[in-house]
Amino acid sequence: MDEFELIRRYFDRKRVVAGVEIGIGDDGAVLVPDPLKHQVQVIDTLVEGVHFPSDTDPADIAYRAVAVNLSDIAAMGAIPRWMTLALTLNNASEPWIAAFAAGLFEAADNHELALVGGDTTGGPTMTVTVTISGEVEKGAALLRSGAKPGDAIFVTGTVGDAAAGLALLQRHEVDEFLVQRFLRPTPRVETGRRLIGKASAAIDISDGLLGDLKKLLLASGVGGEIDISKLPISDALREKFDLAQQRRYALTGGDDYELCFTADPGAVKNIPGITQIGTVSGSAGLVCRLHDDIVDVDDSGYRHFR
Amino acid sequence: MDEFELIRRYFDRKRVVAGVEIGIGDDGAVLVPDPLKHQVQVIDTLVEGVHFPSDTDPADIAYRAVAVNLSDIAAMGAIPRWMTLALTLNNASEPWIAAFAAGLFEAADNHELALVGGDTTGGPTMTVTVTISGEVEKGAALLRSGAKPGDAIFVTGTVGDAAAGLALLQRHEVDEFLVQRFLRPTPRVETGRRLIGKASAAIDISDGLLGDLKKLLLASGVGGEIDISKLPISDALREKFDLAQQRRYALTGGDDYELCFTADPGAVKNIPGITQIGTVSGSAGLVCRLHDDIVDVDDSGYRHFR
Repeated sequence: MDEFELIRRYFDRKRVVAGVEIGIGDDGAVLVPDPLKHQVQVIDTLVEGVHFPSDTDPADIAYRAVAVNLSDIAAMGAIPRWMTLALTLNNASEPWIAAFAAGLFEAADNHELALVGGDTTGGPTMTVTVTISGEVEKGAALLRSGAKPGDAIFVTGTVGDAAAGLALLQRHEVDEFLVQRFLRPTPRVETGRRLIGKASAAIDISDGLLGDLKKLLLASGVGGEIDISKLPISDALREKFDLAQQRRYALTGGDDYELCFTADPGAVKNIPGITQIGTVSGSAGLVCRLHDDIVDVDDSGYRHFR
Repeated sequence: MDEFELIRRYFDRKRVVAGVEIGIGDDGAVLVPDPLKHQVQVIDTLVEGVHFPSDTDPADIAYRAVAVNLSDIAAMGAIPRWMTLALTLNNASEPWIAAFAAGLFEAADNHELALVGGDTTGGPTMTVTVTISGEVEKGAALLRSGAKPGDAIFVTGTVGDAAAGLALLQRHEVDEFLVQRFLRPTPRVETGRRLIGKASAAIDISDGLLGDLKKLLLASGVGGEIDISKLPISDALREKFDLAQQRRYALTGGDDYELCFTADPGAVKNIPGITQIGTVSGSAGLVCRLHDDIVDVDDSGYRHFR
């Protein structure tokens, strides 16, 4: 497998894309940023055997590598534009590469995201690093640091599905919905865009709702409380696991790639697919309630696949 | 080792940097591109045991990871501005990380390059992916594709040193200059800037002079010939290896990270540290001459460390 040839055949689509002067094939890509916007850059790596099982379908690996980066772009409220890919392969076959490229472009094409450059290397452990550059109105990027006491705390979609899906995948059990929620997370790019000027703070949920919400509260210098009974749980998760396990996955399971954000409830009432789960407070720390009781939740942490 | 803590302690320098609205610590970096320029993005990965021996000093690994990306920026004629880092570590100690960060910033600070984001992951194989965004005057980026028959072919610095240095390193022999040329290549950013508007095409030498020059000629739809007697060879390489080996390293040894470019000789006569080695022709392919004889050079390829 020759790197140069491989890139040419599967990754260089020779499309004319807005804002791309020079794409794949030179020493670097030449891009034309929108002079009226700020640029958002994100980078995320998936390692075989750590972030996904080794026998994962290559199309899913690639889709997921793009989606987790799009999720960071969504959490900033930005429009995704350009992507680069650093791919370390261990004797990948041509069909493997073809499937990987198909999954990559499937995820990218959902968002008019162009692959503009990359580097392919050989190595003992398959490693996929994707970067995405997006654009956002000047001064409008959603940060982790703007939550204020009295704001409501929201999440998008449903939480806990991905961790449940991964558990099923590892036990070779089938639940198409939950497994797909792990393999092909849905980055909330459109919701992120609608939160511009409305959300006071935002983060995407990669390490688990509790852990990521705590990061947001800490960055904002505030605290908060959430009501566990209000967590949005999917029907599939309800059917497959008991209530305690549902809540464990929802609170501490990672890889959901939903957004968690804070806002005045009135400002976001027309945004679909969001659920209020709590309130920002002035005192430090995060309190979990179940109706009127304070509950102690172990969030000792989610360690991805391993 | 906690990823969040690790990043905070060694990579987040909390400096105020021009053009960086939000640096490390949120879901993404927020940057302010120069509206009068185009952006150049490059990405390169170094894998332990493939691109460097496992026992390489972490400061050198990091320095080199930045330098090889800066070399791509140089080959485009751009000004380096922002860097992101995806680091996969296998049980790295805190001293290791401290040394890595020191080498990273040493390479970056030479060029006023700011680290604006990253992702740290655990995995069995240490892998370092760096991206750099640079800026270049609109329409002025140096491409591989502009060489014209009659242009002269130049290289910067001296060639062959890095491959010789790696060979010495692997044999545990000492030659400070040659080994440093491998471990800490000098990206020719300043020369790249001076070539704007003067060079007709440029590429950096990562895989070996012959291979990379062929890529440039192919991208330009031209051919060329070089005179092997004109290759710039360092005193250290001359002293340590016989003439045949010097030329082998110079022609097919990789990792030099010098620039190879084409230009009207008159246009670049005031640029220091460059050597004319040949001429662009209208016929396809690359011919190597030794004075008046055509020589057949095996460029079956350089495979980095492995």
